Amino acid sequence: MSLLERVRACAVFDAEAYRPFVVGGEAVGLVHGDFAAALRPFADVFTVSEQAVELSPALSGCEERTSAIDAVLRRLAEDGWVRGWRDEAYDIVSPDRRRILFRMERAAVPRFGLMAFGVHVNGIVGGGGETKMWIGRRSPHKHTAPYKLDQLVAGGIAAGLGVLETLIKEAGEEAKVPAALARLARPAGIVSYRMERPEGLRNDILYLYDLELPADFAPVNTDGELEEFYLWPLRKVIDTVRDTDEFKFNCALVVIDYLVRHGHLSPDDDDYVEIVNGLHRGGH
Amino acid sequence: MSLLERVRACAVFDAEAYRPFVVGGEAVGLVHGDFAAALRPFADVFTVSEQAVELSPALSGCEERTSAIDAVLRRLAEDGWVRGWRDEAYDIVSPDRRRILFRMERAAVPRFGLMAFGVHVNGIVGGGGETKMWIGRRSPHKHTAPYKLDQLVAGGIAAGLGVLETLIKEAGEEAKVPAALARLARPAGIVSYRMERPEGLRNDILYLYDLELPADFAPVNTDGELEEFYLWPLRKVIDTVRDTDEFKFNCALVVIDYLVRHGHLSPDDDDYVEIVNGLHRGGH
Repeated sequence: MSLLERVRACAVFDAEAYRPFVVGGEAVGLVHGDFAAALRPFADVFTVSEQAVELSPALSGCEERTSAIDAVLRRLAEDGWVRGWRDEAYDIVSPDRRRILFRMERAAVPRFGLMAFGVHVNGIVGGGGETKMWIGRRSPHKHTAPYKLDQLVAGGIAAGLGVLETLIKEAGEEAKVPAALARLARPAGIVSYRMERPEGLRNDILYLYDLELPADFAPVNTDGELEEFYLWPLRKVIDTVRDTDEFKFNCALVVIDYLVRHGHLSPDDDDYVEIVNGLHRGGH
Repeated sequence: MSLLERVRACAVFDAEAYRPFVVGGEAVGLVHGDFAAALRPFADVFTVSEQAVELSPALSGCEERTSAIDAVLRRLAEDGWVRGWRDEAYDIVSPDRRRILFRMERAAVPRFGLMAFGVHVNGIVGGGGETKMWIGRRSPHKHTAPYKLDQLVAGGIAAGLGVLETLIKEAGEEAKVPAALARLARPAGIVSYRMERPEGLRNDILYLYDLELPADFAPVNTDGELEEFYLWPLRKVIDTVRDTDEFKFNCALVVIDYLVRHGHLSPDDDDYVEIVNGLHRGGH
């Protein structure tokens, strides 16, 4: 496989099969035809037509919308439409990200193709010699991408939490990075993608950070989400992301973005333009 | 003005007014309706319909296409359709960038909305204190964006030249950077955009490099394209790109991309996601 194929794998979705999810007159997500049919019986909450799925305009406030949707989702979860319920809500924001429209159980967000936000931290050990990167092995018990490779620290941004707040919290839980060290992480852009997955349409924005770690730092997982850590030379990271399916789909993008930003890929490499453009294809 | 407005300024074009430019069965560019009408008399070279402008399939090889198109363009230049003729050709490549389809006078490339490639180098002076960036002032005699601010080194990639080759050549001509120093420039990604300009539809891919310069390096222009250089603290660069119209349109994107990659903007800044996504909206 090539790096471009890794990037393209995160852009696979059949736009024809989806219709817009409209809230307050704005298209904020995309619903698959099959799931639209499953929403049809809940006509007091969702108006389903061939053209769109619309949240009932009668539900106007954030709290009212949140609880009406939640009641529907709990029913649909019984039928298997939402798997891996986590009891963790995401804020669902307007396309300009200036307003919170409602909150939704994280596991259901891809069913509506809604934008979700995460933070991913590249843990880097530089210094004199070869640059190395900390890689995490996800627990085999994770619902999504069990046993795949991951960044040192990565997590979804839960309702009410900021980006840096999430970074510091996840850094402590996932790798026992002290808050004072985690704060030194440097923002470095985003990757974004829309991708069909078993759980629905992922429409994710990942905030990226690079964190330089001292050579004597050793991560320790405290929340059971990562099973093991490896400190790999970049050459091994590159080979693994290109030649194997080991990295979780979106973590591969984060690695590739790091390689681009730090000059480990160059314009002479195959598909350079398509790779860099392809890292930013999600959002609105 | 905001940074997002700078980015959006490079995404302004009215897709409705354009039709595809088809070569060998592939859409490779976009032609405005007005220019399509001007091409109509040259029916042995261009087939103009409401749906598309097609290069005559009878012209099959690179050389044959190049000379047939060139003859038409020289006629159209007399009518003012191509201004600022430079006698410098660009390679026009297939959408996958694997084949050269033909060459075209640089000044005419935007008339066909064809992909063009450039290389832009951020000249950085780091060291102990505050990071500074070398900024060039374009000559008032330049055809495009006279007297605007520019990177230390920037230029279009002419037919037959590679990216690094162009970088080294332009670095020598524009800023008298010795080749051995220019080679240390580190690739850092691309910005891409489609933008309506007086010269047509720019559909550009800019290869970005960062070049760390010694504190005692002072650029000297040798080709008359830049009139002056400034070594500015990043704070002044940020204020200038955000609050003034001084930077050439695409050079502003290059500066903003640098700020994103190096953590001088953060997810808490306004429109962070839209800015980063907006830096990669061109190409195929």
